[in-house]
Amino acid sequence: MKPLLRWLLTLPVALLIAPATAVATPPTVRAEAAVVRMAELQIDPAQMDSYLRFLREEVEVSVRTEPGVLALNAVVLRGRPGHVRLLEVYASQAAYDAHLASPHFLKYKTGTASVVLSLQLLETDPVLLCTKAGLAVSGEPGCL
Amino acid sequence: MKPLLRWLLTLPVALLIAPATAVATPPTVRAEAAVVRMAELQIDPAQMDSYLRFLREEVEVSVRTEPGVLALNAVVLRGRPGHVRLLEVYASQAAYDAHLASPHFLKYKTGTASVVLSLQLLETDPVLLCTKAGLAVSGEPGCL
Repeated sequence: MKPLLRWLLTLPVALLIAPATAVATPPTVRAEAAVVRMAELQIDPAQMDSYLRFLREEVEVSVRTEPGVLALNAVVLRGRPGHVRLLEVYASQAAYDAHLASPHFLKYKTGTASVVLSLQLLETDPVLLCTKAGLAVSGEPGCL
Repeated sequence: MKPLLRWLLTLPVALLIAPATAVATPPTVRAEAAVVRMAELQIDPAQMDSYLRFLREEVEVSVRTEPGVLALNAVVLRGRPGHVRLLEVYASQAAYDAHLASPHFLKYKTGTASVVLSLQLLETDPVLLCTKAGLAVSGEPGCL
């Protein structure tokens, strides 16, 4: 059977199965496909209130609305004003690329450009990322 | 009414209410009570396999079995052998103290003592910690 004909015959079956599968099996994330990175930022200490407003909105909207943004953790080092650390977990490189092009990320990036004194991005290989409620989209307990 | 008498009269009501409350409202975590810290470790690169075995077990068991260990994230910096970063989220100081006394943490601590070349603990103030499935015990989506 020619590939095109086989594909056309398979298509209706695939379309019938797809919706049921989508409901029964939430997207799973393979740890080896995930993009996990850290960022170390130095923010103008006098502008931290403004910076944190942009950051909080960006983090909250990204994780809530983007399917491939699995986690964004933002902390400030205690006793070191303006030192911000981020741990970012994306489902894949495509998810990360989509995030960089999102309107909320661009709003954060342009809105904070003048107060970011330095930014170091650190690529990482995850060892184990565990949260109480599970990290992945499925919401099942467990680790990535 | 004397405090002791008032307490004794209140107790049966509290005991009646408690089980229902426990089921209906999973423990919630206040961000201001949470203990969030980062650790920067330098491990003997030749001993990473052994170190990561201990670390993986400690992380997985802690988050799965300790009510107050909300998240443990462990990564290795890419291209910098032996450089490990941890982001740890505990529900409270008491939860953190309990974790330090747990048998699985002590197993990790003693099992890896000889391969940890340096360890820097960084206290942090969380800005926003968001994961897809929610970070807190309740498993509700949202951020801490």
